[in-house]
Amino acid sequence: MLLLTIDERSPQPIYQQIIAGVRDMIAGRVLLPGEKLPSTRRLADQLAIHRSTVATAYQELWALGFIDLSPGSCPRVRDRMQMATAADSGEKGLIDWQAAASPAAAALWQAHRRLAPSAGREAAPAVISFASLDMDRRLFPLESFRACLDRALKNHGDALLGYGARAGFPPLREYLARRLQSHGIAVTADEILITNGSQHGLDLVFRMLAAPGRAVAVESPTYNYIFPLLRFYGLKPVEIPLREGGMDLDALAATLAGERPALVYTMPTFQNPTGITTGQAHRERLLSLCEAHRIPILEDGFEEEMKYSGRVVLPVKSMDKRHLVIYCGTFSKVLFPGVRIGWLAAERECVERLVAIHRFSEIAPSTILQAAIHEFCHSGHYDRHIGKMHRAYRKRMQATVRALHRHIAPEWAEWTEPSGGFLIWLRLKPPPRPPADWQALLAVHGVEAATGAGFFCGETPGTYLRLSISPLDETEISDGIRRLAAALREAYTPG
Amino acid sequence: MLLLTIDERSPQPIYQQIIAGVRDMIAGRVLLPGEKLPSTRRLADQLAIHRSTVATAYQELWALGFIDLSPGSCPRVRDRMQMATAADSGEKGLIDWQAAASPAAAALWQAHRRLAPSAGREAAPAVISFASLDMDRRLFPLESFRACLDRALKNHGDALLGYGARAGFPPLREYLARRLQSHGIAVTADEILITNGSQHGLDLVFRMLAAPGRAVAVESPTYNYIFPLLRFYGLKPVEIPLREGGMDLDALAATLAGERPALVYTMPTFQNPTGITTGQAHRERLLSLCEAHRIPILEDGFEEEMKYSGRVVLPVKSMDKRHLVIYCGTFSKVLFPGVRIGWLAAERECVERLVAIHRFSEIAPSTILQAAIHEFCHSGHYDRHIGKMHRAYRKRMQATVRALHRHIAPEWAEWTEPSGGFLIWLRLKPPPRPPADWQALLAVHGVEAATGAGFFCGETPGTYLRLSISPLDETEISDGIRRLAAALREAYTPG
Repeated sequence: MLLLTIDERSPQPIYQQIIAGVRDMIAGRVLLPGEKLPSTRRLADQLAIHRSTVATAYQELWALGFIDLSPGSCPRVRDRMQMATAADSGEKGLIDWQAAASPAAAALWQAHRRLAPSAGREAAPAVISFASLDMDRRLFPLESFRACLDRALKNHGDALLGYGARAGFPPLREYLARRLQSHGIAVTADEILITNGSQHGLDLVFRMLAAPGRAVAVESPTYNYIFPLLRFYGLKPVEIPLREGGMDLDALAATLAGERPALVYTMPTFQNPTGITTGQAHRERLLSLCEAHRIPILEDGFEEEMKYSGRVVLPVKSMDKRHLVIYCGTFSKVLFPGVRIGWLAAERECVERLVAIHRFSEIAPSTILQAAIHEFCHSGHYDRHIGKMHRAYRKRMQATVRALHRHIAPEWAEWTEPSGGFLIWLRLKPPPRPPADWQALLAVHGVEAATGAGFFCGETPGTYLRLSISPLDETEISDGIRRLAAALREAYTPG
Repeated sequence: MLLLTIDERSPQPIYQQIIAGVRDMIAGRVLLPGEKLPSTRRLADQLAIHRSTVATAYQELWALGFIDLSPGSCPRVRDRMQMATAADSGEKGLIDWQAAASPAAAALWQAHRRLAPSAGREAAPAVISFASLDMDRRLFPLESFRACLDRALKNHGDALLGYGARAGFPPLREYLARRLQSHGIAVTADEILITNGSQHGLDLVFRMLAAPGRAVAVESPTYNYIFPLLRFYGLKPVEIPLREGGMDLDALAATLAGERPALVYTMPTFQNPTGITTGQAHRERLLSLCEAHRIPILEDGFEEEMKYSGRVVLPVKSMDKRHLVIYCGTFSKVLFPGVRIGWLAAERECVERLVAIHRFSEIAPSTILQAAIHEFCHSGHYDRHIGKMHRAYRKRMQATVRALHRHIAPEWAEWTEPSGGFLIWLRLKPPPRPPADWQALLAVHGVEAATGAGFFCGETPGTYLRLSISPLDETEISDGIRRLAAALREAYTPG
């Protein structure tokens, strides 16, 4: 006889109580494999319930693999493969994931572990961090965005909950096409692809070009996420030295003629990590060179909107009559990064080819947040927010430059004053007492900054500190520079 | 003298009016390259404005590359590279994107163009379409989701607007870990990675394994987006025939021993396209086979929640004591697809390696919608919605099966009755009058369905129609099956 108790007042249906009871008895080895269960009639009589209830429970126990049913005989407990339990969770499994991963994925994993976990991490509260390109949460336009998100769902409703248009929410593409015109870029909505942030745009472009061993020309130093990503796709970064005025175009010309790279990747405005902005003449020559060799340019305008100094140079894309520039932008560095919305602007066929890659990777974009951002832009919040950001960061950058002049001796470091953005690149001179570990020296003084490593493909040809002011206000900046100065004083004071 | 007019009541600052005026004159060739502009003093006098305003305008015109400035002489119009204009937009550019793309990306582009644009497309209104796996918008829980989204932003605020945790919104990972327990899967939150829909999960896994030429074992037929994606990453699909009870495990055993695939991809529940669900014994043997050969399984549970028949088989992952199963799920097929949220559950190290790939591809996920979905689940809406979906689709599937029995003659086709999900796979018998084009024949009768092509790697070994009822209600289903029957009658009536 099966010792089952049924609680008729339980919200759990009776057949489910039977299933749970039998499963428990099997798990507790009260019922052993091969053992017989009562017939449906006997169990129904015993529990004073309907036979069909027992039959339903038995059917499901059979489907779950706990019992065998054969017509005309009683059910028997099956020799079932055991369920995995929470206790198994900590055990090392059968798969060696390092060996299972491709060599490229294994290398990317190493790069991931080497890199500081900049995104999503908080610095220790007592530390002032110039290391992260996170944005200052105190400036997020939370309430207006929240209202726009709600209005977008109200206005567009179910259309946003179904599969969205593959290249992005059409009104946002229209808006971005108009917006880019204010940066001198003449494109139509069908030349725009909305991406999950600008990194996603770079990723799609690299995947499109990723024939193994192809070269990609990059500035040196450049954005540190580029090298691991290029290598992951089998692409070979070729470094073009960055001078005060931008990429060394003679070196680029030699590379274009020789290696014929698949792409030239450039950040002409507020370059990461150096903050350098190239001039009009440099941009014209870069474009002409690539036109002559028919090599596409990937122009990363990740801080394009953060031109707060009044002097504006238009993007290379603004002169791109021959459609070889793929322009990449983002809302992350002026609005907030959590929305993960950026865009690519490129020749229509190029956009369609990138859409194909995105389709097989993620089917379609989520257009809910895209519609919210459209509402935010369309209703004027975006322009107002940019004005606010410009006013805040103009002051903050001025405070940074003032503090640097006041506290950092010219014998220690030199830097270029940027006309916008968030970055200043300190080129340190050889100190009399070089610390074993710059990060550790800074940490002792309660300050953090990115060092040069990672922004160069191979060896770092000097000592650098990239200061990002994006998450900091003026007081934090002044305090931070003072701490930085105290650390440098230690390295530059002859022992 | 420069014919500029200044409007002092305009909201546009005066220096910007000067810039716009000069740019217009250069564009209109009123001012030619080399021509002199007035000195700041002269123009200031002429316009009765301050000299510094003119100086600001000239500085910006210089930065924009329109004029040259040299100390002590008047500004001159530069021979500037021309801006690209809307007129250039239609012109074919310099880059041959077919040649610029890698061979793999070029092949993916072909696959993209061959595939019907299923997502985001509306069928002609008069047509009843069994072709699309879109969801029925009439069932979307718009209002409750909208409230949850607003509440999530209110409760979590700025934290959602900054960079999110790389593996996804932590409370949603916790929720999913608990939820998976109800499917017999014992995992912890750190074994879960939230993805941009389940396709994104597959994409990440394939990218992790994509060493060129590696084999991946797949059911035949299988989900049609798998083949182009595997090939894009240089992976080689190896087809294992699908029988009535699931993948042919003898054939799989031979493949595992021979080719040693990097992965076995399987959909044991409501398989796409066949709707077949494998039994417990099949799942146990599949797992044992892969354990013996130490080969990971990618278990696609895209319709796991749509078990509405009462008989449930637990996922292969539920028995995965040795951590070789990567389980993939999604909210798209029970809630709505536009939110683009799915998940992977796998051994922790595997999850971390996938996070690394996602980090370099997209930096971090957007957690705004993840927090909204968590709110939706946590507050009980999700369970209620699943109940509603089960009731609706149980009836709809019953209506489908009834209509098939009533209208489709056994001499025309056979099919397997599914215990959940949205799909029925008709295996057509050789008709006496095979149409030149099945799609065209169906279209004549006002109905659409996916044919077999695309679900097999090479040649389609028969004639098939995949009927998806996901976007249709009972009336549409009955009408649609009647139209389908009319089309088949034409093919099966001896001429």
